[in-house]
Amino acid sequence: MMKIDVVTLFPEMFDGPLGHSIVKRAIEKDIVEVNKVNFRQFGKGKHQVVDDTPYGGGAGMLLKPEPLFEAMDSINERDPETKKRVILMDPAGKPFNQAMAEDFSEEEHLVFLCGHYEGYDERIRSLVTDEVSLGDYVLTGGELAAMVMIDATVRLLPEVLGNASSAQTDSHSSGLLEHPHYTRPAEYKGMKVPEVLMNGNHGLIEAWRHEESLKRTFERRPDMLESYDLSDRDKSLIEKWQNEADETGE
Amino acid sequence: MMKIDVVTLFPEMFDGPLGHSIVKRAIEKDIVEVNKVNFRQFGKGKHQVVDDTPYGGGAGMLLKPEPLFEAMDSINERDPETKKRVILMDPAGKPFNQAMAEDFSEEEHLVFLCGHYEGYDERIRSLVTDEVSLGDYVLTGGELAAMVMIDATVRLLPEVLGNASSAQTDSHSSGLLEHPHYTRPAEYKGMKVPEVLMNGNHGLIEAWRHEESLKRTFERRPDMLESYDLSDRDKSLIEKWQNEADETGE
Repeated sequence: MMKIDVVTLFPEMFDGPLGHSIVKRAIEKDIVEVNKVNFRQFGKGKHQVVDDTPYGGGAGMLLKPEPLFEAMDSINERDPETKKRVILMDPAGKPFNQAMAEDFSEEEHLVFLCGHYEGYDERIRSLVTDEVSLGDYVLTGGELAAMVMIDATVRLLPEVLGNASSAQTDSHSSGLLEHPHYTRPAEYKGMKVPEVLMNGNHGLIEAWRHEESLKRTFERRPDMLESYDLSDRDKSLIEKWQNEADETGE
Repeated sequence: MMKIDVVTLFPEMFDGPLGHSIVKRAIEKDIVEVNKVNFRQFGKGKHQVVDDTPYGGGAGMLLKPEPLFEAMDSINERDPETKKRVILMDPAGKPFNQAMAEDFSEEEHLVFLCGHYEGYDERIRSLVTDEVSLGDYVLTGGELAAMVMIDATVRLLPEVLGNASSAQTDSHSSGLLEHPHYTRPAEYKGMKVPEVLMNGNHGLIEAWRHEESLKRTFERRPDMLESYDLSDRDKSLIEKWQNEADETGE
C-alpha cells in the first residue's frame, strides 16, 4: 500500500477531494493511505506561531523552518522504514507533468509539503527531494497543488481505475490529444454524430480516431508532436494540413 | 461583484477549498459569488442518467450533451444579463497560465464546466468560449482543475489579497522566479541566513534579491528569460553563469 502524507495548515481542505471519486475508492480499497499532518501543532509559543517576517524586509510573512522540520521528524518517527519522496509545492519548482505522476506512482511513501503565506524560509528546501510547480500560475497555497498531484498519481496505481484501458487512452498518456467522442442522441440541436462512428467498421473507426487525434494535436499542441513517433502516413497528413494552413495565411 | 458558476456532478468537493483561505475571504467580502450547479438534476429518466457509451465503441462512458446544455440554460435563465465566459476543463485545451488567470479576473461571469468519466460528447464544446487544460497531466475529473483556476483568478481581484504588493512579487508575476527568503532564527541546524539580509542596506538587499531571482530562473526555467526584459548587468551575469556551467561540463 502506498503511503501519502500531506503536511498542511488546512487539513480540512482535503476532505472533499479525498472523500470523492477515484481517490476515495483507492483509500477504501486499501491501495493508498492518506494522512494529514497539521504543522500548526509544531508552532511556537501559546499562539503556535508558524510564520515570521522576512529578513531584509518586504511584504508578507514566511513559514518558519522549525515547524516543518518537526513535522517531518514526526512522520519519520511514525514510519522510520519507508523510503520517502518529499515534495515541496513551489511555484519555482519543476513543472508537474504526466511523467512525474508516473514516477510518483512507483514510490512507497510520498510526503507533500504545502505552504501558504508569501513563501518558505529557504532552509526548508534542505528537507525535500523534489520541488514541484503545478504550472505557470500563482496559487494562494500549496494545498490545491497537492490535491491535483495526488489525484494524478493515485489514478495510476494498479487496480484504481475500473477499466485498465482507461488510463492509457487519455490525452497526454498516448502522446497525442484525444480524438472527439460522441454518444447518444445521434442528432442534437442540429448537430450530428459523424457517419463513420455509426457504421460499425472498426478499421475505419480506428483510422478516423487516430487522424482526429493527430489533427487536434497538430492544431493545438504541435510541441507534443516532437516527441511522438510519427508514421509515414502521419507525416504526409501533417504536411497536407501544414500546406492548407499556409494557404489560408495562418 | 464577479459571478462564478461551477457545473459539476460533485458540488461537495468544492466545500473545503471554497470554505478556506483567500476564496472564502473574497466570498465573505462580497467580491465574488460562487454557485454550484449539479447537472445530475438534468439527467435522463428515473436514474437521472448523465452518461452513455461512445458511438464507435471503446472503453468508458461519455457525458451526454443534454444535461450540460440544460445546466447552461438554467444559468442563462437565472442571469440573463451577464456576459459569460464558459470554460471547459479539458486536457486537450489551452494550458492554463498566469496571463489567463489575469484575463479571467477581468470578467463579469465565469462558468466552469467540469467533466468526469472518460470524456464529453463533442457537441458540448459548442457551449464554451474557452477550452482549458491545467497542465500536461491527466486528472480524474475537472473539479480540481476548476478549483485551481478559481483560486488563481480570485486572488487577483481587487482587495482580495491583504497586501496589494503580494500579488506582484510572486513567482511568474514578475517574469522571474522568486529569490530565496529567510526568517528567524538566524541560524538553524547549522544553516545561516545570508549576511546581506541582516545588514539593513536596502540597496544591497535589492541587488542581492534580483540577482538570486535571475540566477534561479537561469538555472531552473531559462525559457522564462526569453520574455523578460534583461538589463545590461543581467546579460553579463547570465553570460558569466553560462561560462561557469560550460566549464564544469554541464
